[in-house]
Amino acid sequence: MKTIDLNADLGEGFGHWRMGDDDAMLDFVTSANIACGFHAGDPDIMSRCFALAKEKNVAIGAHVAFQDLIGFGRRLIPLSPTEITHAVCYQIGAAQALARLHGARVSYVKAHGALANSAEINSSVAEAIAQAIKLSDASLSLLSIARSEQTHAGYRAGLQIAHEIFADRAYSDDGRLLPREHPDAIISDINQIIDRMSIMLECQSLLTIGGKKLPTKIDSICVHGDTPQAINIAQCLRASLLGNGYSLRAFSQPAS
Amino acid sequence: MKTIDLNADLGEGFGHWRMGDDDAMLDFVTSANIACGFHAGDPDIMSRCFALAKEKNVAIGAHVAFQDLIGFGRRLIPLSPTEITHAVCYQIGAAQALARLHGARVSYVKAHGALANSAEINSSVAEAIAQAIKLSDASLSLLSIARSEQTHAGYRAGLQIAHEIFADRAYSDDGRLLPREHPDAIISDINQIIDRMSIMLECQSLLTIGGKKLPTKIDSICVHGDTPQAINIAQCLRASLLGNGYSLRAFSQPAS
Amino acid sequence: MKTIDLNADLGEGFGHWRMGDDDAMLDFVTSANIACGFHAGDPDIMSRCFALAKEKNVAIGAHVAFQDLIGFGRRLIPLSPTEITHAVCYQIGAAQALARLHGARVSYVKAHGALANSAEINSSVAEAIAQAIKLSDASLSLLSIARSEQTHAGYRAGLQIAHEIFADRAYSDDGRLLPREHPDAIISDINQIIDRMSIMLECQSLLTIGGKKLPTKIDSICVHGDTPQAINIAQCLRASLLGNGYSLRAFSQPAS
Amino acid sequence: MKTIDLNADLGEGFGHWRMGDDDAMLDFVTSANIACGFHAGDPDIMSRCFALAKEKNVAIGAHVAFQDLIGFGRRLIPLSPTEITHAVCYQIGAAQALARLHGARVSYVKAHGALANSAEINSSVAEAIAQAIKLSDASLSLLSIARSEQTHAGYRAGLQIAHEIFADRAYSDDGRLLPREHPDAIISDINQIIDRMSIMLECQSLLTIGGKKLPTKIDSICVHGDTPQAINIAQCLRASLLGNGYSLRAFSQPAS
Repeated sequence: MKTIDLNADLGEGFGHWRMGDDDAMLDFVTSANIACGFHAGDPDIMSRCFALAKEKNVAIGAHVAFQDLIGFGRRLIPLSPTEITHAVCYQIGAAQALARLHGARVSYVKAHGALANSAEINSSVAEAIAQAIKLSDASLSLLSIARSEQTHAGYRAGLQIAHEIFADRAYSDDGRLLPREHPDAIISDINQIIDRMSIMLECQSLLTIGGKKLPTKIDSICVHGDTPQAINIAQCLRASLLGNGYSLRAFSQPAS
Repeated sequence: MKTIDLNADLGEGFGHWRMGDDDAMLDFVTSANIACGFHAGDPDIMSRCFALAKEKNVAIGAHVAFQDLIGFGRRLIPLSPTEITHAVCYQIGAAQALARLHGARVSYVKAHGALANSAEINSSVAEAIAQAIKLSDASLSLLSIARSEQTHAGYRAGLQIAHEIFADRAYSDDGRLLPREHPDAIISDINQIIDRMSIMLECQSLLTIGGKKLPTKIDSICVHGDTPQAINIAQCLRASLLGNGYSLRAFSQPAS
Repeated sequence: MKTIDLNADLGEGFGHWRMGDDDAMLDFVTSANIACGFHAGDPDIMSRCFALAKEKNVAIGAHVAFQDLIGFGRRLIPLSPTEITHAVCYQIGAAQALARLHGARVSYVKAHGALANSAEINSSVAEAIAQAIKLSDASLSLLSIARSEQTHAGYRAGLQIAHEIFADRAYSDDGRLLPREHPDAIISDINQIIDRMSIMLECQSLLTIGGKKLPTKIDSICVHGDTPQAINIAQCLRASLLGNGYSLRAFSQPAS
Repeated sequence: MKTIDLNADLGEGFGHWRMGDDDAMLDFVTSANIACGFHAGDPDIMSRCFALAKEKNVAIGAHVAFQDLIGFGRRLIPLSPTEITHAVCYQIGAAQALARLHGARVSYVKAHGALANSAEINSSVAEAIAQAIKLSDASLSLLSIARSEQTHAGYRAGLQIAHEIFADRAYSDDGRLLPREHPDAIISDINQIIDRMSIMLECQSLLTIGGKKLPTKIDSICVHGDTPQAINIAQCLRASLLGNGYSLRAFSQPAS
């Protein structure tokens, strides 16, 4: 049986502010990337998300980022590789302890925003994240942008890697995510999203803006949680995947 | 053989700012309470302290606090017990992951500043901290102000407790630390400090400002790190304790 | 002709987070209390609000608060009066310069959240805020909770005072705002809100939870902006006031 | 009579942390660049510095920076020009109100750290700062790195410009400050500093690392405040300048 994972970014509020609908999204995804307080999230929001994810049997990921609340982790903060390793460790550990509070556990790590974009193309940043995981808890998987430097660095570090594609983001012909500033970067038509995902999964390839197919292993599809139609996209994509004969299961969960 | 532990607060810089001389202090203490980024400290400073403490064979504690950099954790921030539990878990976990990065481990938890003062007298705050430790990692000890509500809460939670007295702080007749604002709160004369510690250890009692002796188990003596004469006090007190026949050993380290 | 002012809290987002609908609210109120970056708001959000308020001819207030983003300024942070004066000055000045950037000006100061609640009952806090205004720019008015210590302190400092009542908040029999934790603190029925405001204005009195009428001058009505029905309340209350023969005008704007 | 200004960065503590010796430095400089809370400083520290500068008759500058406490303003934060204008306005205004609290006034603006380095070479950043000054208070001078884009942008905006050279920093042959990472960037020998300043003033030129002399107007010399020998450098340089027949006077202070 074919299986696939759906992941989304959750817990992206801060204090009294909210972003997205965590409760609704947890009904559709199989893996939740939970913000760790650096770009969003705080100990109370994290705690609530961990409890809810456990209750709904959704796998938990530490969504690590630059320490930049005002920029929501989307600005490139010039850290050295060593500083990145420290920042990532800090966030992983914080998430792990709060998960344990609820009898849950963190299964994987995913980089957010500018840190992820940097790790996609910069091998020393990718290496710094991989080392943080390897040295703080090598049992954690790395959820990594498919065909990225981060994937290579993860393999070199001996980590378990899950390859991720993005439901609502376009790819350049060299397999990179188009930057958010690009007019065609975000795909918002649900039918288009469903078709793209269906083709990519079937071909095990990225579909690029120029029509190329770049082969890749695909373990997980990322749906974004901070757009108004996010819940609807997740719901429809899930239904479509089930209709196509896929079983939805967290990549970090062993086949039963 | 009589053993005693000396602990100090370390890693209390932030970014480019420094406070105290961590390197010097680590030559004299047996346990280091390392700030976890909420009142002071950042992932880089924490990392440096953990590496250094491991190298010098000093036991590592997570020094947890209210999230209040500008107030250095010395202002009472009105959190609910649940919020305190979350904040403490977050800091413990962050410290644990950064310690593992260096092959070191966090052995204990100590509350800092206003959180400690609150836990001294407020049983629900004390309980909130104890629950954070019990549920996130019950193998961690709690370094607790002697004769405090925190000690009681720790025992109720089934934690390993180390009872702490303060080298340079006066006690009221009901066994409480005099608040820092009190003119007699801080004892700065080294000879007086040494004499007091000697008597307290011998009598296994707190010596109060009114001359009372309040019985208590004593596992550790806290020397502060942020005063100009801090290093000197630690050095002299250590020498005096060794001279009095004490062996200096981290309370969290099993007798050999 | 009878005139009254409607004020609301605006600009309470931070970075990528939003709270309330600033644009809609600016169509109904005559005075906008704009967050200054301490409990919410940032230089970009402030700037946008100032430009919009000027365009819509809405008076601008600096909504000053404790520096506490994660608590949204609703937690009592233990500052000394001098520290409060400094924090308030800082926020006033920041707002003034950003207003000037748009050819606009700050007309008044209002305290937010826990700082306002503290100034309502604590004369030294009230005094600290009044001194900040008097010494940094005595031409600024103070928008003050009616019958509060803040009103008294403002008069003592020689400030221009506007007396404010709250559309959606209940009053205790001694004329205090019921704390938000109280089950009856928030009034959400629009008809009840309109009736209450009508009576209070007519009687120039606070209506208390026990049915007492406490006389007060009333210059402005506060409608809250962060509840889902906020825009609707503002719109209906405005219509009702106009229907009752009131002219809506910013208290800080001289009668034409 | 020849006059020159000596400026230094002051008020660079935060909360309980301190950096440099503000009190001592204010005895030697004629202009104080006071941190505004974005890279360092807080309302209490700013207030203390303003009071002290006024007492010692030292001119006050708003030392504006990226909002980056942990990076001390030395990391390039990717802001748009509009965001820079807003951030600079915010800081200028905050400083002005706190200065007024003490009957003092801000005379000029200087960019700090990565913002200054960016404004040195990037005309849109330089323009963004100049616009913030022009639109929020055109009576403020701009203290600008000599021969920089910032100087050009300041002139274009019609601002009063003071040209600044650095006592302890080396210049490349194209007249740029060598980056701090460069091994020869910092000059620490006092005699060398004194000689260089003497030559630069005499020739009204920058002395570059390759021995070139690049002509420039010189209104002020910056001495840094955060190095251990900072006070000594300021004291000796001041003595040397007086010995060479210079009168020391703030550039923003009219000749008497």
